[in-house]
Amino acid sequence: MGESARGKRTQPGGLTYAQSGVDIEAGDRFAGSIQAGMRRTFGPRVLDRPGGFAGLVRLDYNESLFKHNYKDPVLVSCTDGVGTKVHLGIELGKYDTLGIDLVAMCVNDLVVESAEPLLFLDYIGVNKVDQAVLSELMKGIVQGCEIAGAALIGGETAEMNDLYKPGDFDLAGFSVGVVELKRATDPTRVEPGDIVLGLASDGVHSNGFSLVRKIIEHAKLDLHAVYPEIAGDNGTPRTLGEVLMTPTRIYARSIVRVLRAYKVKKVITGMAHITGGGLAGNLSRALPEHVDAVIDANAWDTPPVFPFLQDQGGVSDEEMDRVFNMGVGYCLIVRPTFADSIAKRLEKLGERVYHLGKITKGKGQVRLSAKK
Amino acid sequence: MGESARGKRTQPGGLTYAQSGVDIEAGDRFAGSIQAGMRRTFGPRVLDRPGGFAGLVRLDYNESLFKHNYKDPVLVSCTDGVGTKVHLGIELGKYDTLGIDLVAMCVNDLVVESAEPLLFLDYIGVNKVDQAVLSELMKGIVQGCEIAGAALIGGETAEMNDLYKPGDFDLAGFSVGVVELKRATDPTRVEPGDIVLGLASDGVHSNGFSLVRKIIEHAKLDLHAVYPEIAGDNGTPRTLGEVLMTPTRIYARSIVRVLRAYKVKKVITGMAHITGGGLAGNLSRALPEHVDAVIDANAWDTPPVFPFLQDQGGVSDEEMDRVFNMGVGYCLIVRPTFADSIAKRLEKLGERVYHLGKITKGKGQVRLSAKK
Repeated sequence: MGESARGKRTQPGGLTYAQSGVDIEAGDRFAGSIQAGMRRTFGPRVLDRPGGFAGLVRLDYNESLFKHNYKDPVLVSCTDGVGTKVHLGIELGKYDTLGIDLVAMCVNDLVVESAEPLLFLDYIGVNKVDQAVLSELMKGIVQGCEIAGAALIGGETAEMNDLYKPGDFDLAGFSVGVVELKRATDPTRVEPGDIVLGLASDGVHSNGFSLVRKIIEHAKLDLHAVYPEIAGDNGTPRTLGEVLMTPTRIYARSIVRVLRAYKVKKVITGMAHITGGGLAGNLSRALPEHVDAVIDANAWDTPPVFPFLQDQGGVSDEEMDRVFNMGVGYCLIVRPTFADSIAKRLEKLGERVYHLGKITKGKGQVRLSAKK
Repeated sequence: MGESARGKRTQPGGLTYAQSGVDIEAGDRFAGSIQAGMRRTFGPRVLDRPGGFAGLVRLDYNESLFKHNYKDPVLVSCTDGVGTKVHLGIELGKYDTLGIDLVAMCVNDLVVESAEPLLFLDYIGVNKVDQAVLSELMKGIVQGCEIAGAALIGGETAEMNDLYKPGDFDLAGFSVGVVELKRATDPTRVEPGDIVLGLASDGVHSNGFSLVRKIIEHAKLDLHAVYPEIAGDNGTPRTLGEVLMTPTRIYARSIVRVLRAYKVKKVITGMAHITGGGLAGNLSRALPEHVDAVIDANAWDTPPVFPFLQDQGGVSDEEMDRVFNMGVGYCLIVRPTFADSIAKRLEKLGERVYHLGKITKGKGQVRLSAKK
């Protein structure tokens, strides 16, 4: 992996190289340059074998002190992209945080299943290997992996100049985590009386950017302008572009810590990463058929970017709730007697926690109260 | 996973849906339609939990009869695309085998590290969800996973109409396998005297298509025409397009079987999946620094498509060897006393096996004899 798993396999030659339109040397330079970044994410589980065909990660630690001693380990795996948020990055020439978004979209899904993130790989399709742009993208991916505690053990950069327009690229991320079978999230354990906690989002995250871009176009907004209602109160006022590019919050580390703290008691009965589909669309995936989640729509603070976008685009409330996270990026369903201690622990880990509501008998639905 | 992991997260709403340019219903229909295909690839290790946020696969079997009882399991993981072969598929309107290519590019890399493929996920970036095209793509992915013995436990279809031109798409694959640490491929075990076996390729596979397309353009070749020198001797003559779209051979199942048969003796000391970089470029990755692989360039049959492309494009021998597999898609380095029995076993599994050469003292290089 490493050099081998990165950009080696999409290097066709040509009648001459130049004629085939693929710059092998640029690809090789890029592959070399990211080795150091990748290594920063390697924990003791990674087998560092340069030149291999794939990345190798031990399932468990070798040192007995850290051993999980899995009895029936389950691999949890998912893939995701950052959608049309890439366009915004391309328009703004801002590439250093899209990698955080990419990692976040994957690892936040893994921890919903109670898995501990192990490894991450990226796929980048580009028009042309542009060392400067790719380095910025990789910077974000490395940073995201460090935050999430996942080893970046490989990736692929595919130069396809007929598919991608000059300057364009697409990103896909893949992540794997592990959980002991008996500790994997089990939706059937959610019960009436359980409490729903919400963790604050850092803004729009990585969903709904087709609508965001439509609103920008419709209302003739300027990405480089400062709009006072969303520019923030502290320090340098932020432009619309900066506000929108704020990376997706990575909840993985906080969630893994909390899961470890309540390993035996299993007081967290369900979780949800709030992405496209919004709070209701995603929280409902954590519910068994015989319960509802009754949510107080006034329980959390909606970041100003959402009413701003809504006003500018004349978007309905229902549409906003369905497309955006509206301020809650992650939910936990917990046993009522532990709700406060879990909330406190999450706050200590740097999360802003809301008591959103509770679980009642029902039909697997999320019921949102009217907003005041 | 499943419905959840497929196409759910790239569905922004819009001022209205139509205005945002994303057809959520088409995405949902597609997600539903591929469930049956995905389930076909599920073995007993997959935990089937519809609505979850990620795919779950047990590392080991539950039934004691099949248990591997891993002591120190290593996860082996890689990602790849099919490069500009997607363009050829798009030009030809032929989508049903690109998925096989995608799976092959990943799982053939996994087995090089002696891993048994466990799971696969795909990422498809598209201009617009076209049920007919995506179904064909998924058909190939499912087929590839069935051949490789990997469970297709998730995927993502991202509709991005500003990034991809109408009709265009990109594919990325991601695969994970597992191997007991002490049985993982260890390049330091390769010794002078070891024999190099080659497995026949099924043609161009998935590398070098930028050059292929350049040759087609340069020599004004017609993808729909039958060129007698490459059309084949049996049955209906194949068009150039058909010859070029022949899917990448999946060696994973044969390799896994052979690895199991020689589990204790570890008589296979190295392997290589021959992709971009050709035989020398990839086989050298399996060599420790103190040995060479001396290869008889006349030991295998070069499929007619390669001299055909070379003639049409006026490509040098060196360039051909560096870009294409030239007829050998996978290599094994084996202990000399077992070379014949391993070759026979692989032939019984349907592979065409060549005795390519042997390992000598050297400098980590592949030395190819001159062609007669």
